[in-house]
Amino acid sequence: MHYTISLIGSGNVAWHLGQALEKAGYKIGEVYSRNPQHAGRLAERLYDARITSSVDLSGSTSDLFILCVSDDAIAAVADGIILPDEDSILCHTSGTQPLSILGGRKNAGVFYPLQTFSKSRRPDIGSVPFCIEASDPHTEAVLVEIAQSLSRTVYLVNSQERKVLHMGAVFACNFTNHLLAVAKELLDREELDFELLKPLIRETFAKALEAADPAAVQTGPAVRGDYQSIRSHLEYLQEMPHREALYKLLTDSIAQHPRK
Amino acid sequence: MHYTISLIGSGNVAWHLGQALEKAGYKIGEVYSRNPQHAGRLAERLYDARITSSVDLSGSTSDLFILCVSDDAIAAVADGIILPDEDSILCHTSGTQPLSILGGRKNAGVFYPLQTFSKSRRPDIGSVPFCIEASDPHTEAVLVEIAQSLSRTVYLVNSQERKVLHMGAVFACNFTNHLLAVAKELLDREELDFELLKPLIRETFAKALEAADPAAVQTGPAVRGDYQSIRSHLEYLQEMPHREALYKLLTDSIAQHPRK
Repeated sequence: MHYTISLIGSGNVAWHLGQALEKAGYKIGEVYSRNPQHAGRLAERLYDARITSSVDLSGSTSDLFILCVSDDAIAAVADGIILPDEDSILCHTSGTQPLSILGGRKNAGVFYPLQTFSKSRRPDIGSVPFCIEASDPHTEAVLVEIAQSLSRTVYLVNSQERKVLHMGAVFACNFTNHLLAVAKELLDREELDFELLKPLIRETFAKALEAADPAAVQTGPAVRGDYQSIRSHLEYLQEMPHREALYKLLTDSIAQHPRK
Repeated sequence: MHYTISLIGSGNVAWHLGQALEKAGYKIGEVYSRNPQHAGRLAERLYDARITSSVDLSGSTSDLFILCVSDDAIAAVADGIILPDEDSILCHTSGTQPLSILGGRKNAGVFYPLQTFSKSRRPDIGSVPFCIEASDPHTEAVLVEIAQSLSRTVYLVNSQERKVLHMGAVFACNFTNHLLAVAKELLDREELDFELLKPLIRETFAKALEAADPAAVQTGPAVRGDYQSIRSHLEYLQEMPHREALYKLLTDSIAQHPRK
């Protein structure tokens, strides 16, 4: 179907989603932002999107309204928004917020691209998993159809599952990124170049993501019971109690993890 | 120089190093293994290496002997080894053991390729950082020359620095791999496909390794003060006390990390 779609918000998600939707053949109706300049920058990249700084969208010809505002703004913006008619679909794009944050509307949904977006890097939208949830079968069908026209990977994921997915991403992405920062901090102390570790980091991640389970390719002192290395590391970390605590807890956690 | 090199050990490191050295133009003299079949499998891949299961190498014509045995076997094997003459160089390939484990020999060294090797994956040796340490300037020069003929990245790294490098690798590789396993475990509980997270994991690592410091591209609830998500995750993790403890400690650690 040739839906017309409006974007509520003009941040990184709107930026990439808007351009990808247009490329997939959809018409972008409005780009809303409180700040018309922001909306304008995105609208310039689109064929004939109209910019607006009013949430009264009752005059819009769009079928679908995608909220791309920050997580803590969703409730307030959704609450104020006026859609053209009762068949209009409103969805948000957040991994952390439940469907119910849209206030129990008819034709409400979640259209969540599970990827991190920044303006400076063009993501390969075709490989981004889209997680869809909807208040009703019609909305679900529309959102799935649109997601499938953008990506090879579309899943139905309810609010509870999306919460666990988000938590998994915190472990797999936010926490791992932090451990890379800690490793760099340790190397900095000895004036060692972080570049030294990068090939090993790349290979470790390639192996972990190829394996059926990263636990099956776990290496290191904790898994091979190399207490000599562990003692020597803990001795070095004594003067950095936060790092020492992290090292101990992660070492125990690996030692206790079920072997595959 | 056209050195002849013998490999003491026939595991993954010997496997890849032996073939790479031969490709770089060196002659492989002997391959030693306690198990002649193991040595034989590697020797078959090499031009005319002799296999031996004796550590009496006094009759060898090699200039350099590279120990590729497991970390806890280095001391014992090095202690028993008989080299052709006092100019023969003996080095080990371990990231965790000091130079001194070779027993204060003349012409001793460390020839440490900072990469994880498995027989089934052919590493790009040219991009593997080699960390060199030696008992004397002549040995250092020989090891640096050989490493530079294999790789674009050769560093002089002393035993203390190598210990910190290894500890950095534990944080950046072993611990991060474990967190990927934990993420998979959480998804498994909800019967969510781990494939869903992989594009995000790949992008996160690409960004972290492109940044001057991974801390500069840290994202997630801890860094943006999203207490609602943190509370909701900790609530879910209540029945998994080990995961809850990891989540808390890593969240605190991110919140306290110096911002760049």
